[in-house]
Amino acid sequence: MSRLWDKGAPLDERVLRYTAGEDHALDNRLVEYDVRASIAHAEMLNAQGFLPAADLEAIRRGLSEIAAEHAAGKWQVSLEHEDGQTALESLLTERIGEAGKRVHLGRSRNDQVLTALRLYLRDAVDELKQRVEGAVQALDELAAREGDVALPGYTHMQQAMPSSVKLWAGGFAAELRDDAEGLQQVHRRLQKSPLGSAAGYGSPNLSIDREATAKKLAFASVQQPVTSVQLSRGKAEAQLLFEISMVMQDVARLASDLMLFYTQEFSFVALPDAFTTGSSIMPQKRNPDVFELIRGRSASAQACLLEVMGIVAKLPSGYQRDLQLIKVPLFRGIDLCLDTLGILPSALAGVTFRKDRIRLDPSIHAAAEANELVVKEGISFREAYRRIGDKLRKT
Amino acid sequence: MSRLWDKGAPLDERVLRYTAGEDHALDNRLVEYDVRASIAHAEMLNAQGFLPAADLEAIRRGLSEIAAEHAAGKWQVSLEHEDGQTALESLLTERIGEAGKRVHLGRSRNDQVLTALRLYLRDAVDELKQRVEGAVQALDELAAREGDVALPGYTHMQQAMPSSVKLWAGGFAAELRDDAEGLQQVHRRLQKSPLGSAAGYGSPNLSIDREATAKKLAFASVQQPVTSVQLSRGKAEAQLLFEISMVMQDVARLASDLMLFYTQEFSFVALPDAFTTGSSIMPQKRNPDVFELIRGRSASAQACLLEVMGIVAKLPSGYQRDLQLIKVPLFRGIDLCLDTLGILPSALAGVTFRKDRIRLDPSIHAAAEANELVVKEGISFREAYRRIGDKLRKT
Amino acid sequence: MSRLWDKGAPLDERVLRYTAGEDHALDNRLVEYDVRASIAHAEMLNAQGFLPAADLEAIRRGLSEIAAEHAAGKWQVSLEHEDGQTALESLLTERIGEAGKRVHLGRSRNDQVLTALRLYLRDAVDELKQRVEGAVQALDELAAREGDVALPGYTHMQQAMPSSVKLWAGGFAAELRDDAEGLQQVHRRLQKSPLGSAAGYGSPNLSIDREATAKKLAFASVQQPVTSVQLSRGKAEAQLLFEISMVMQDVARLASDLMLFYTQEFSFVALPDAFTTGSSIMPQKRNPDVFELIRGRSASAQACLLEVMGIVAKLPSGYQRDLQLIKVPLFRGIDLCLDTLGILPSALAGVTFRKDRIRLDPSIHAAAEANELVVKEGISFREAYRRIGDKLRKT
Amino acid sequence: MSRLWDKGAPLDERVLRYTAGEDHALDNRLVEYDVRASIAHAEMLNAQGFLPAADLEAIRRGLSEIAAEHAAGKWQVSLEHEDGQTALESLLTERIGEAGKRVHLGRSRNDQVLTALRLYLRDAVDELKQRVEGAVQALDELAAREGDVALPGYTHMQQAMPSSVKLWAGGFAAELRDDAEGLQQVHRRLQKSPLGSAAGYGSPNLSIDREATAKKLAFASVQQPVTSVQLSRGKAEAQLLFEISMVMQDVARLASDLMLFYTQEFSFVALPDAFTTGSSIMPQKRNPDVFELIRGRSASAQACLLEVMGIVAKLPSGYQRDLQLIKVPLFRGIDLCLDTLGILPSALAGVTFRKDRIRLDPSIHAAAEANELVVKEGISFREAYRRIGDKLRKT
Repeated sequence: MSRLWDKGAPLDERVLRYTAGEDHALDNRLVEYDVRASIAHAEMLNAQGFLPAADLEAIRRGLSEIAAEHAAGKWQVSLEHEDGQTALESLLTERIGEAGKRVHLGRSRNDQVLTALRLYLRDAVDELKQRVEGAVQALDELAAREGDVALPGYTHMQQAMPSSVKLWAGGFAAELRDDAEGLQQVHRRLQKSPLGSAAGYGSPNLSIDREATAKKLAFASVQQPVTSVQLSRGKAEAQLLFEISMVMQDVARLASDLMLFYTQEFSFVALPDAFTTGSSIMPQKRNPDVFELIRGRSASAQACLLEVMGIVAKLPSGYQRDLQLIKVPLFRGIDLCLDTLGILPSALAGVTFRKDRIRLDPSIHAAAEANELVVKEGISFREAYRRIGDKLRKT
Repeated sequence: MSRLWDKGAPLDERVLRYTAGEDHALDNRLVEYDVRASIAHAEMLNAQGFLPAADLEAIRRGLSEIAAEHAAGKWQVSLEHEDGQTALESLLTERIGEAGKRVHLGRSRNDQVLTALRLYLRDAVDELKQRVEGAVQALDELAAREGDVALPGYTHMQQAMPSSVKLWAGGFAAELRDDAEGLQQVHRRLQKSPLGSAAGYGSPNLSIDREATAKKLAFASVQQPVTSVQLSRGKAEAQLLFEISMVMQDVARLASDLMLFYTQEFSFVALPDAFTTGSSIMPQKRNPDVFELIRGRSASAQACLLEVMGIVAKLPSGYQRDLQLIKVPLFRGIDLCLDTLGILPSALAGVTFRKDRIRLDPSIHAAAEANELVVKEGISFREAYRRIGDKLRKT
Repeated sequence: MSRLWDKGAPLDERVLRYTAGEDHALDNRLVEYDVRASIAHAEMLNAQGFLPAADLEAIRRGLSEIAAEHAAGKWQVSLEHEDGQTALESLLTERIGEAGKRVHLGRSRNDQVLTALRLYLRDAVDELKQRVEGAVQALDELAAREGDVALPGYTHMQQAMPSSVKLWAGGFAAELRDDAEGLQQVHRRLQKSPLGSAAGYGSPNLSIDREATAKKLAFASVQQPVTSVQLSRGKAEAQLLFEISMVMQDVARLASDLMLFYTQEFSFVALPDAFTTGSSIMPQKRNPDVFELIRGRSASAQACLLEVMGIVAKLPSGYQRDLQLIKVPLFRGIDLCLDTLGILPSALAGVTFRKDRIRLDPSIHAAAEANELVVKEGISFREAYRRIGDKLRKT
Repeated sequence: MSRLWDKGAPLDERVLRYTAGEDHALDNRLVEYDVRASIAHAEMLNAQGFLPAADLEAIRRGLSEIAAEHAAGKWQVSLEHEDGQTALESLLTERIGEAGKRVHLGRSRNDQVLTALRLYLRDAVDELKQRVEGAVQALDELAAREGDVALPGYTHMQQAMPSSVKLWAGGFAAELRDDAEGLQQVHRRLQKSPLGSAAGYGSPNLSIDREATAKKLAFASVQQPVTSVQLSRGKAEAQLLFEISMVMQDVARLASDLMLFYTQEFSFVALPDAFTTGSSIMPQKRNPDVFELIRGRSASAQACLLEVMGIVAKLPSGYQRDLQLIKVPLFRGIDLCLDTLGILPSALAGVTFRKDRIRLDPSIHAAAEANELVVKEGISFREAYRRIGDKLRKT
């Protein structure tokens, strides 16, 4: 199979491998979105008089079949195709002949891949949000189940004020709700249609109708001017990874609490057997591996964000091949967050708090006692604080 | 001056220095906000019956004077105060006596500092947005002034398609507008009132009216439950630094373009003398230092973001002293972005494009020629592409 | 196949997938090293009287066969095995029976995997060094071939002083030599034997001879005390990724120079066809993709380093499951550097400098002229600098 | 005061502030090193016949006085000076007249500042190493004092095997010793003399004796070729920050352990009053703030490393003004590590382990029991593991 831009010069196999990297494999998740965008593009070309109706029909049918076969696992984007965009055009032309060669008018791989990516990311954001809400629900259920159990509230990892499972779980639930809203905000940068910006400078001598394709693909607006499109590469992606990092930060802190509570010394919680694993030499061990890996993956999420920002940093304007590398940390960050949120609700469903083992230090009520002194005796808070402090030091 | 929590134990000076760090100096920018929040808190205490009217009056007057004197440079938060919150309570009590000791009822430094910080950040976000808009305006003016100058449009740092100063400047302007909207989104996490959450577990035995203080301070809502407040530390801050990183990424890429254009080999632009600097040994040199430092500071912005996320990572829930360290990268990130956006419009105002030196490679019209072949001869784009390619290789 | 620590409790398939992650696949590159270390361990057990000679012989033969079959592609560590260590013990026991169950005495997966990892990293470091030296050689050859071509020397991306291809290539070669020495330094942290530290607390009631296994495996010393072993996880790994980042930084800067030189405006270099790629819509384009991807991958290398440091950050002492995640960025960083260094020499072999197009600005000699004035007229450098500056401004 | 490169063009005050940033303040710590290097340079100029003996004498005396006055606090590098190099030449010329204008022959600020920086870093590395050794000593003393106290050894934050204070402290001591060796390795990149490379291209028409200045300043070698000097900017700096990050990682993990041990639930340790701080509303609290801030600052150290690598990333070769920004994270990273190591030994001196509260779970001996079964009954380890596991499940 020939690559589109292979104009006869011998192309070293190693160069292809170095330049394509994992790209072809990653592009598999974009195929269905690329097909959708390619059909919208072809419809627009037809409406603008650049594509006969029969060709449009052939393209529609051809791409739909190709997408269906891809979904059915009958083909995969391979190194030979170099990337998903090239694969689609080649397969289409093989299947429907000359009409397939007409689909790339007025677009470039630069806008094509970005369009498919944004369509995919819209779905990914929604799936992430849904899973965050699943975790919120699991926390709400935990609060409903065991909310009344008294817990020490900690500051500086020291018992500080009385708290409860309801307050503990509710705090995390609120922050995850906040993250779901943060994910929702990412849509802002995803709702601009790049399609028709071609290589980043439009197709000045063709009457391309960018509004039409934007509408067909449910984008809120056409990204203008064309030069902004490639400058925006990596920004929605980074914002998504930023919000993913916030989700992972919150669930990693939840995991930190649970691992603390699960130590023999705390013994505040029991974890279900399915969520602990054993040791290769210590027969007594039940380890909270899932929570450890949630904590560890929060670091990976941050690294994904940093990688995307590092790839884009300092680049001159206009498309640069470096931008292709964004997909690796982007997809990885999405997947690790989806996986984590996928496992978390079941893990939380099995957590039980051990009322018998949870001890609140008597001094935990000191601030409340100071408050009471203020209310009862009308003294200032600072004076009440001093008195309670003196009393505690004497006991 | 005694620190609030210094209950008599000798406290090693070195420990104070290590724990306070730069905190006291940084807190100076929070004083006016802390005063505003403290007055709102005192008003609520009065309304709830915890603070006599005369004491409220004294607190209002005392804090207002203290804030005015701080603004006038008459005092600064110092290491002796440890932090701005302690400073205010101490100064107030010195000035108005016992009433000053009543202000801390129903709050903790944990919610106090976060309230002041969010009030400050609201202003900082707005100032950043305003400056971003200043940079947009400078780009718009540049486009108005020299927009018609033809420029090569680049991909892969290679001449690709015809472009213009208008398109070039317009692309950056569009992305900066996008960043201004991104900054606006940060308000979402800033509009939740932490005040009254105290150390993170509320004041269960006091009837604190959090709605009232939230309303007085123009927060959109009360952050609930109380346990979510300390979990949210660092999230709005990180989102702000994320959006600052996007701004800095965009202006650094603008700087990369201009430094390229300013090389002797390109000679596309002239820069004003005031924006270039000389060399200590090469008398002929005029260096684009401002643009280099914009590029360099984009890396610093990313590091600020990473630092905040790194500080919060993996912490158990509840306030931890680590969170204090957030202020250093947060304020640094804000300042470097404000400074950069402060200098950029003047720098852009002096940029002139050298029409006489800008050369578009004739082959830059190849894609347009292929498009034309398609329109005129009705052949497919891929065939037209092949023909133009062949023609170019022969010449 | 049962997992070693599966003591009958039903283990949710999803938990396994979440906890194992990509681990099993990554472990494939450790199999040969694990076999080598396991044989050394068994020999020591035999010498200490814990393992009959016949069992040792069976273990030796069994493991060697298993390793040979793995090398021949006859089996792979799979999700079912959970990890490479478990796979080896299971396969061994299947093959040789009871003797296989004796090999894990006095060690844990914690020291087992770390031993295999260090043995692998020793080889990886050496391969990286060798490839760095390959790049150095390519630069030396470039200098030999075209060293005499005059080049402008730049500061601030401005022509500054006369330079040459020899000096240009020589600078990068020197820095890569420096990186090779940096890689060599990584061996320091790799030459401590973790074997026998078991889960991190040794095997107090067994006379395990750690010196013997260290010697057999060519470690320079036994890592002591046992508790330092798990604390050191991620440190050699991070140092290696740090030095990889330095290599990638240097070659990315080389790539930055070459992409600048390859612009139409500079036209200082020609690149071979095999190292440039075409465009999907602009038939004239020849893009320097390999160099762009080298630049981009330098950001990925940094992210790998950051990820390892983020994973280890703040963890309490003792093995934590998070540490397993180190392998992902570690292997990725090694591979991307090996790939980059693998392609670079061929790319450099094809670079030619276009003497006809390289122009040195006449003012580039200004510093030399000032020096000459000093020598000839005995005036101070600062005075000479002023005079040359004045002269330049007048022309 | 005029800046060296200010050739009459009006230079906007704001530009100066943006370009100089904090540079002048940071340069204060380089003054003594710059003076030392400048004298060495002047001596070489004299030996090469470029500087009369009387001028050398004046320069030596002038610079020594200036350095002494700086050390005595009589002057500071200010924004007006722009940077420390310019300050020194200006002050020298003010003081000794024409001879002062002769000192800059054959060097540039580019090699001058780097020389001073490396001399400073040599001292900084040694001070860091010394402080690491101070922390090691404190751990050794703790082990000597309380080493016999039994501690649970943890894996996965679960009691795993018997350990002791000696093993616990010894593990950290060993890792800090490892870090001291890591710091020592940084000297490799610091021992190359940049002096005489001038702006990065040498002084081709002057016979500058780089060997002589390298020797005078105790560098091990001359950095060759001249073009490698500016390419190496940020590499020794990053390596130092990398090793600082390792130190901070190790002490942050120590802090994590101690904060765990200090919880009421563990109650394994008591901390001295001077190392804990109080709460503004909870009179009973004694918080381990020093350890929290050590943990937090480990994140700051990583950010400093990332910042330096980010600043250098992708830059074309030759000096770029961005490199100036390295000093901010570099000095910050050094200081935060020095401060942390400065406070740690006193903190450790006050830690006492509470033998009465430390409980080892009986099952902690399970692995040892399995080992014993192997030794006594000659069964395989895996069989012994199974039996002990069964026994534990029944109890």
